[in-house]
Amino acid sequence: MSTAEQIRRGDFRAAARLMRWVDDGDGRAWPVLADLYAFTGQARVVGVTGSPGVGKSSLIDGLIALWREAGRRVGVVAVDPTSPFTGGAILGDRVRMQRHAGDAGVFIRSLATRGQLGGLSASAGTVAQVLDAMGCDRVVIETVGVGQDEVDVVRHADVTVVVVAPAQGDEVQAHKAGVLEIADVLVVNKSDHPGVERTVAELTLAMDMAPEGARRPAVLRCTATDGTGLREVAAEVERLLRDQEDGGRRDKALRERTEALVLDLAATRFHAGAEAAMRSDPVVVETLQRLHRRETDPFRAAQVLWERVRRGHAGDGSPETA
Amino acid sequence: MSTAEQIRRGDFRAAARLMRWVDDGDGRAWPVLADLYAFTGQARVVGVTGSPGVGKSSLIDGLIALWREAGRRVGVVAVDPTSPFTGGAILGDRVRMQRHAGDAGVFIRSLATRGQLGGLSASAGTVAQVLDAMGCDRVVIETVGVGQDEVDVVRHADVTVVVVAPAQGDEVQAHKAGVLEIADVLVVNKSDHPGVERTVAELTLAMDMAPEGARRPAVLRCTATDGTGLREVAAEVERLLRDQEDGGRRDKALRERTEALVLDLAATRFHAGAEAAMRSDPVVVETLQRLHRRETDPFRAAQVLWERVRRGHAGDGSPETA
Repeated sequence: MSTAEQIRRGDFRAAARLMRWVDDGDGRAWPVLADLYAFTGQARVVGVTGSPGVGKSSLIDGLIALWREAGRRVGVVAVDPTSPFTGGAILGDRVRMQRHAGDAGVFIRSLATRGQLGGLSASAGTVAQVLDAMGCDRVVIETVGVGQDEVDVVRHADVTVVVVAPAQGDEVQAHKAGVLEIADVLVVNKSDHPGVERTVAELTLAMDMAPEGARRPAVLRCTATDGTGLREVAAEVERLLRDQEDGGRRDKALRERTEALVLDLAATRFHAGAEAAMRSDPVVVETLQRLHRRETDPFRAAQVLWERVRRGHAGDGSPETA
Repeated sequence: MSTAEQIRRGDFRAAARLMRWVDDGDGRAWPVLADLYAFTGQARVVGVTGSPGVGKSSLIDGLIALWREAGRRVGVVAVDPTSPFTGGAILGDRVRMQRHAGDAGVFIRSLATRGQLGGLSASAGTVAQVLDAMGCDRVVIETVGVGQDEVDVVRHADVTVVVVAPAQGDEVQAHKAGVLEIADVLVVNKSDHPGVERTVAELTLAMDMAPEGARRPAVLRCTATDGTGLREVAAEVERLLRDQEDGGRRDKALRERTEALVLDLAATRFHAGAEAAMRSDPVVVETLQRLHRRETDPFRAAQVLWERVRRGHAGDGSPETA
């Protein structure tokens, strides 16, 4: 049986091996992923994002329980910011949300944040596709922080949930800009903590001030640890997913997501080539030496690097001259 | 007078125009940047990062005041997470830290987070170099969030300061992993808030548990808004910068940073080519259509995209066959 077939039949070990290949940028992943692609497109992908400590994992844990009640299979891609310095493997394979660890209807995969540019988003999108091919109806992509990572989550998710904790001081102000832009649902978690009313009021006001035509996410409060408000969050997510079925919006989003993945995967190729060239292409290596002697500059050096990478650099023998 | 010369002589308008070109990916920036490169290498770069609301801007404001006291010229690159959806220009040019707005020895530039992959880091590094060429002795790069952005900051900074606020609940736990990895200095800001002792104790413990040979950042407390502890933070930053002068560590770091910039700049080329190909290269466009009909898969499509981009795609007439 092919690896792809094993994975489709729910072989967790084969899936874990494939995901490790994806994480490591191991080329053996590609043909398997290519075979699996035809079986994707069923899962709905939910991005969950927010700063550290706001309770994203608890919220996801609660959503999983509700989806399992409804008989759904669930996948989670947890993106952890780990190290480019110590290898990053320490947290890479940890399994969180232990409550569901023995449940064959829940598959959780942590991804390391590799230093590799463009690689993380490609990995997250790819792992989401594997979970899709494994028959997961709902796939959660969890990320931490506010920044480029969030933008990348949005590209892979049908619906994005932004989780915030009740604010102290200027925190809500600081959150607003990013929050307004990427949230489909805004969850104020830890609604038993002080400051929740003010936070909800401020976020609601911010949503009301959104420009005409912009999305206006619902602002929901929740205490994920005891389940308060969880059903409302899940219901809003499902409502948004259903809405997307109308007017071909879901198909359009799926197409855009697939194209974003193609771009990420091609970028991974570029980066592998560029890093190899910087190590071992004599033309590039010499250019970098001249750069450090200030005989050239980073912009001309980048031009040389790009030309060498696109030509396949060092000793591939091609007589290209374009 | 060339634009580069104007900028070297401290023409803020010429510098602002160049930075706008950098932000917009406008090709007119390249020759100017190339000319400026020979005059870089003097500035020491300090990354300041942390979640929204921890008081990064106040801390930077305080550091600027101390550096100005010492007669230094200061540049700030503030990286804002803004929108890939509404254009992102709203916050892109805003000037914060108004206190220093009229001071000709302080130059502050906000950068928008463009959707463009790899572009943000290249922009931040490039703007830092412009500030360097303008004679700034200290350049701060401020970013928000915990994730890939932080990794990118580290690549452009000599010293990285991670700012945290006193923790509530599980927040410190959540911070630890990322913090341990990228901080050279750990600042617990808002030291007049509750929880500061516990946060300092937990972070110190986490630092003590770092593996042999790992960096062990000092854990300092500070109330940036009233200046308490600020001098100690500044002194620690300066101490680390001085230490790097020994044993060629500074030169090595500068070389690595310059090479990272070269890679980022070449990646920008790749992305511009890929995006153009996805829009207008008939081979790529047809491949994407086949992809959406599931007649091919993202991995084969990425291969086609990569091959077309490296060959210069659509109608450049080059007879390359590699």
